[in-house]
Amino acid sequence: MSWEQLWLNYKAKENYGGRDFFKVITKKAGGVIIDCAADELVRAAQGFFGLTPSVEEHGADSGIILQITDNGKIAKAEGFRVYNKVGAVYVESPTDKGILYGVFALIRCVMLNVDLHYIDISESPDNPIRMINHWDDFNGNIERGYSGRSFFFKENDIIVNERTKDYARLMASIGINCSTVNNVNVKGVAAELVTEKHFDKLRQIAEIFAGYGIKMFLSLNWASPMKLGGLDTADPLDESVINWWKERVEAIYQNIPGFGGFLVKADSEGEPGPFTYGRDHAQGANMLANLVKPHGGIIIWRCFVYNCKQDWRDKVTDRAKAAYDNFSPLDGKFLDNVILQIKNGPMDFQVREPVTPLFGALKHTNQILEVQIAQEYTGHQKDVCYLVPSWKETLDFRTYMSQDHDTVGDIVSGKAFGGSNCGFAAVSNTGDEPNWTSNDLAAANLYGFGRLAWNTGLSSEEIAYEWTVLTLSNEPQVVKNVAYILLNSWPAYENYTSPLGIGWMINPGIHYGPNVDGYEYDVWGTYHRADHKGIGVDRSSKGTGYATQYNDPNRIMYETPDACPTELLLFFHRLSYDYVLKTGKTLIQHIYDSHFDGADAVEVMIKQWRECKEFLPLAVYERVMKKFDEQSLNSKNWRDTVNTYFYRKSMINDKHGRLIHT
Amino acid sequence: MSWEQLWLNYKAKENYGGRDFFKVITKKAGGVIIDCAADELVRAAQGFFGLTPSVEEHGADSGIILQITDNGKIAKAEGFRVYNKVGAVYVESPTDKGILYGVFALIRCVMLNVDLHYIDISESPDNPIRMINHWDDFNGNIERGYSGRSFFFKENDIIVNERTKDYARLMASIGINCSTVNNVNVKGVAAELVTEKHFDKLRQIAEIFAGYGIKMFLSLNWASPMKLGGLDTADPLDESVINWWKERVEAIYQNIPGFGGFLVKADSEGEPGPFTYGRDHAQGANMLANLVKPHGGIIIWRCFVYNCKQDWRDKVTDRAKAAYDNFSPLDGKFLDNVILQIKNGPMDFQVREPVTPLFGALKHTNQILEVQIAQEYTGHQKDVCYLVPSWKETLDFRTYMSQDHDTVGDIVSGKAFGGSNCGFAAVSNTGDEPNWTSNDLAAANLYGFGRLAWNTGLSSEEIAYEWTVLTLSNEPQVVKNVAYILLNSWPAYENYTSPLGIGWMINPGIHYGPNVDGYEYDVWGTYHRADHKGIGVDRSSKGTGYATQYNDPNRIMYETPDACPTELLLFFHRLSYDYVLKTGKTLIQHIYDSHFDGADAVEVMIKQWRECKEFLPLAVYERVMKKFDEQSLNSKNWRDTVNTYFYRKSMINDKHGRLIHT
Repeated sequence: MSWEQLWLNYKAKENYGGRDFFKVITKKAGGVIIDCAADELVRAAQGFFGLTPSVEEHGADSGIILQITDNGKIAKAEGFRVYNKVGAVYVESPTDKGILYGVFALIRCVMLNVDLHYIDISESPDNPIRMINHWDDFNGNIERGYSGRSFFFKENDIIVNERTKDYARLMASIGINCSTVNNVNVKGVAAELVTEKHFDKLRQIAEIFAGYGIKMFLSLNWASPMKLGGLDTADPLDESVINWWKERVEAIYQNIPGFGGFLVKADSEGEPGPFTYGRDHAQGANMLANLVKPHGGIIIWRCFVYNCKQDWRDKVTDRAKAAYDNFSPLDGKFLDNVILQIKNGPMDFQVREPVTPLFGALKHTNQILEVQIAQEYTGHQKDVCYLVPSWKETLDFRTYMSQDHDTVGDIVSGKAFGGSNCGFAAVSNTGDEPNWTSNDLAAANLYGFGRLAWNTGLSSEEIAYEWTVLTLSNEPQVVKNVAYILLNSWPAYENYTSPLGIGWMINPGIHYGPNVDGYEYDVWGTYHRADHKGIGVDRSSKGTGYATQYNDPNRIMYETPDACPTELLLFFHRLSYDYVLKTGKTLIQHIYDSHFDGADAVEVMIKQWRECKEFLPLAVYERVMKKFDEQSLNSKNWRDTVNTYFYRKSMINDKHGRLIHT
Repeated sequence: MSWEQLWLNYKAKENYGGRDFFKVITKKAGGVIIDCAADELVRAAQGFFGLTPSVEEHGADSGIILQITDNGKIAKAEGFRVYNKVGAVYVESPTDKGILYGVFALIRCVMLNVDLHYIDISESPDNPIRMINHWDDFNGNIERGYSGRSFFFKENDIIVNERTKDYARLMASIGINCSTVNNVNVKGVAAELVTEKHFDKLRQIAEIFAGYGIKMFLSLNWASPMKLGGLDTADPLDESVINWWKERVEAIYQNIPGFGGFLVKADSEGEPGPFTYGRDHAQGANMLANLVKPHGGIIIWRCFVYNCKQDWRDKVTDRAKAAYDNFSPLDGKFLDNVILQIKNGPMDFQVREPVTPLFGALKHTNQILEVQIAQEYTGHQKDVCYLVPSWKETLDFRTYMSQDHDTVGDIVSGKAFGGSNCGFAAVSNTGDEPNWTSNDLAAANLYGFGRLAWNTGLSSEEIAYEWTVLTLSNEPQVVKNVAYILLNSWPAYENYTSPLGIGWMINPGIHYGPNVDGYEYDVWGTYHRADHKGIGVDRSSKGTGYATQYNDPNRIMYETPDACPTELLLFFHRLSYDYVLKTGKTLIQHIYDSHFDGADAVEVMIKQWRECKEFLPLAVYERVMKKFDEQSLNSKNWRDTVNTYFYRKSMINDKHGRLIHT
C-alpha cells in the first residue's frame, strides 16, 4: 500500500526568494540525527525547487548551516534558533535533536512563505515529554482506530518498512519525542513484546525513531510474570516477580538501546494490576521504576481507574470521582521516574467534560496530560471535529493550587513544580490508510496535537492556518473556508450530540451514533437519569460530592447551577426542563435549538468545502466530501433522535414549531 | 470432550416387571435402520437391567420382535404399533423407520414404567417433515448458540465422530427425520460445503443420519455461482447459473445418496437472493427445485424477508407486514417440491407475538412452521423458559381459511390442504457442552419440540412430565417441582421482560438483558414509540393496517383494543398508560405488577429447584442452580430497568408503593 506525506508534502514552489539557500547544506555536527535533518532538507529542496543540494561537512558560510552551539539564546536542550546572517541560514541548537526540530521549523517557514533573508526564530518546547500513544493491537487491529489497520503490527508480527520512517519524520516534524507503539490493553500474545522473540524488530523501529529523536515505549501486561514467566503471582513486592521483571528490563535495554520505558494500564477495565495483591499503585509503579532507573527509563502509569461494574441503581458511587479518589492519597509516594498519565476529564474523552480535579490535587507527583486524537467519542473521523480548541481549554484551566503558574499546562510542562518527567500525551488517530487518518481533515488534530505540545501558546486559529497551508493549499479561499470548517466543527458536533456536558448518549461498545439511553441502565457509571421533569446528576456537595474535589473557587463555581458554566451544567447538576439558562432559554429549548443548530452547521461546513473544490486535488476533495455525506445524514439522525427522545419524555413543544418526530 | 445422553440416559431399573422381554430381540426385517433399532434395545437392556440380549433373526415368539407389517392398524409409513401378544412384545410398522420409532417408544414406555405385559400403542406422526435447523457456522461458532461450539464444524472443517451418532440417536428418539447442519447465513468458505472438497465427510454424516431415519440438508449461499463458479451473475433465469447449480446438485446426489435438499435464506438481512436480478422468490426457488426434483430433493425457502434498513422516523413501513406482503401474492406459483418455511410470528421469535397472518393466506403452497428452540430472545439458556406452551398456541391458532381443519397445525401437517411436503421445523439450542444445551432445563425444549412435531396433541404438561422422568428422576417431588418450574417459566420470562406483546426491549445485537430503547431509534423496524402519555404502535386499519392481513374474525379481534387479547394489546394498539385492561388494571399498573410478579416467580422456581436437590445428581443440580443464580439477578435487573423506564417517562406511581428506582 502506498501512502501520502500529509504536511510534509513538498510541492513545487514557484517564485520563492529563498531557493538558493538550499543549494548547499553544511553539517557542522555529526551523528544520525544530523544526517536525518540534512536528508530532510534535501527532500524539501527536491520537492520545492527541483534541486539537489550539495551536502558538505566543512563548507563556506553560505546556504543552510547546521551547527551545535550554546550561545545562551536557546533555552532548552531541544530548543533551536534559525536565523540569517550574512547570506547564510543557520540552524543552531545545543543538541542534534534541537537542530532537527529547527530544520523542520525552517521547512515549515518555507511552506508558509516566510522570507529566509530576514528569518530569526528561537523556540524551545513547552513540554518535556511530547508523546503519542498508539492503541495498536499485535494482530494489526487498532482499538478505537478509524483509519485502517496498524502500520506497526500485522498478524502478531512487527512491521518495519519505509512507512516506519515516514511516520518518524511526520512525528518529529511536529515535535513528538516519545511514542508508545502498542495498545495499553495488552492482550494475548502481545504480552510477548517484552521477550527476545521480538527484540530484533523492535530494535529496528527504535533505531529509526532514534534518527528522528523519538524514544520508543512499550505498553506491558501487569500479569506478564504469570503469563510469560510461569510464576503464580504478579505481586509487585514478591521477590520472584521483581527478579522476573529485572531480567526482562535488562534484556530489553541490552537489545534495544535508548528504549524509553513502559506505559502501564493496571487495575483498569479488567486489566490486571497491583490491587489483586493488596498493593497500591505506587507500590506497583515504583517496583518497575526501580528496575528501569539505572537505564534512564521511565514508567508512565495511567490513572484511568474506576469501577466498571457499577449497578445503575447505585446513586452513591460516582465514576467521575474515581481518579481523584484513587490517586490523590498517593501524592508524593511515586519515585521520580514514575509519571502519572491523567486523562483530561474525569470520565472518558467525551465531547465535553470538566477538567479532572486530579490535576489540582498532586503537588509532589510527575504528571502527563492525556488527550485523545482518535475520535472515539467525537465522530470516528467520519464527522469532522477539530479538537485543538478543547485541548487548549484543558491546558488553560486554572487549578488554583497556587497564586500563579497553576494551570494544567503549567503543571504538565514543569512550570508549576519543576522537573522534566512530565508533558503531554495523546492517543493517535492514525492507521494504514493512504492518508493516515481516514478523514483528511482529521490530520489537523494529529498535527495540532504535536504543535500544541511543543508550543501551548499557539492559538487554535494559528494551528488551523498552518495545517491548511502545509497540507492543502495556501489559496485564500481554502485557508478561509477550511479554517471556518475546523473551528466550527467541535461546537457543531457538541451541539448535535449530547447537551451541556452530560455525555454518553451513544451506542454502547461502538461509541458512535445517538443512543440516549444506550448506557443508562448499564454498568459503566455513566447515567443521565432523565425523566419526565428533568435530567442530570447532582455532583455538588448535596449530591455525589464530586464538585468538592476541586480547589476554590472552582469548587464554588461548580457547586451551584447559577455559577456553573453553561456548557457543563448537566455534568454538575440535575435540572428541570424549564430551568432558565444564562442565555434566557429554558433547558429543553436549549436542547432543541442546539440540535437544530448543530445539524444546520454541518450543511454550512459542507457548503464551505464545496467552495474549495477547484483549489484541491480531486481525490482529496472527494474523499472528504464522502465523509461529509455521512456526517450530514448522521448529524440529522442525532438531531432527530435526541430531540424526539426529550420530546417524548417531556412532552414540551419546540417554541419554533420545527419538526420533531413523535 | 465427553458428553451426556439426555433423555437416553438408561439408568439401572430395579424391580421392573418387563425385564425378561429384553433377553431376546428378534429382527424379522433387515437393513441398517433395523440394526440401529436393535442396537438401541441392546443399549437400553444393558443400562436398565445389566443384561445383554441375544439378537436373532429367526427366533421364537418371545422377547421383543421387530417386524415389517401392513396390518391396517398403522396409519402412515412412519407409524408403528407396539403390543404384547402371548408373551412377546411386537414392534411393527410398514417401514424400518417406523420400527425404529416404535423401539424408541417402547424404551420410553419402560422408563415411564409402563407394564409391557399389557402394552398396545399405535402411533403415526402428525407432521410429515420434523426438522431441526442448526445455525452452526463452518468455523465452529453457532449463531445464537448458547451451549458452546458446534459439534458439526470446527475451523472450517467437518467433524464426524461418536457424538454425530449420539446426536442422530437423540433426534430419532423424539421423531426428528430431517436436519440442516449448517447455518442459514452461509458466510465465506461455508459456501464451499456444496463442493467436492467436503463431500466425503458430509456423506459420512448423511450415512450416520440415515441409520436413524434422518435426512441431511444443507443451507446454501444464493450467490454461489459467483463466489464459487466465477460467474458474473446469480440470476436464477440465467442459463449459465442454472447449469452451474445443475452440476452441483448432480455431484451432491452422486456423492451423498439420500441427501434431503437445501434450506435457503435469500434476500434477507443482507443475504443475496433473486431480488438482485429482478426475479421473485418463486422464480428463485423453482429453479433449484427443478434441479433437485429428479433426485427426490426438496427446497425449503425461508420467508424471513423484510426491510432491515428502515428509518425509525418512517411510520408507514411496518416490518410485521413484510412476510405476508412478500409471499402471499406468490401463492400457487411454487413447484410441488418447494416448501415455504414460515416463522411463527411476523417479527422474530419474540417472547410473545401474534401468529403470522401468512399462514392464513396460502392455499396452494407447501408450508413449514419454524420456531426457535435456541433461546435467542427468551433468556439465552441462562433463564429457564419452557417454550412448548408457546408452540402449542401457534399450532392451535385458527386461521379461519375454512370451516374446519384450518389451524396452523392443520396447515403444516397437511390436514388442511393435503400433501406431504410440509411440517414443523425448529432452530436448535444444542452445542458441544457436555449436557448439549448448557442449561439442563433447556433440553426440555429440544425434547418437547420433537415430541410435539410427532404428536401435536400432546399437552405441555405431558411433555414436561415425560422429559422430567426420562432425564432427571421419577421421584414425585422432582416430577412435581420440575413440572411447576417448566410450566411457569415462560409466563415468568414474559412478565419480567417486555409487556403485552410489544417485544424488542433488549440489548441490540446480543439480544439479552433489558434495554427498553435498545432498538427504538435503530434500523430494524421494531419500535414501541413510548412517550410520556402512552406506548405502542397502532397496527389496526387506522394505523399500519397489519391487522387487516388476518381473515375474519381474527381481523376483527385485533382491530380494536377491547377485543384484542390482553397479551397482544401493545402489539396491535397504541394506548395511554391509564387505559384499563380487561383485568381492571391500568396499563401502567399492569407493567409494574407483571414485572414484580415475574421477578418474584423466579424466586419461587428457585425454591422449587432447591427442594429437588436430594433426588438429583449433584452436578446437574449445581449446574442448573448456577443458571438460576444468574436468572435471579437478571430478572431483578429486568424488573427494575423496565419499571424505572416507565416511571421516569409516565411519572405515575406504583399503586402498591413498591420500590421503583427513580
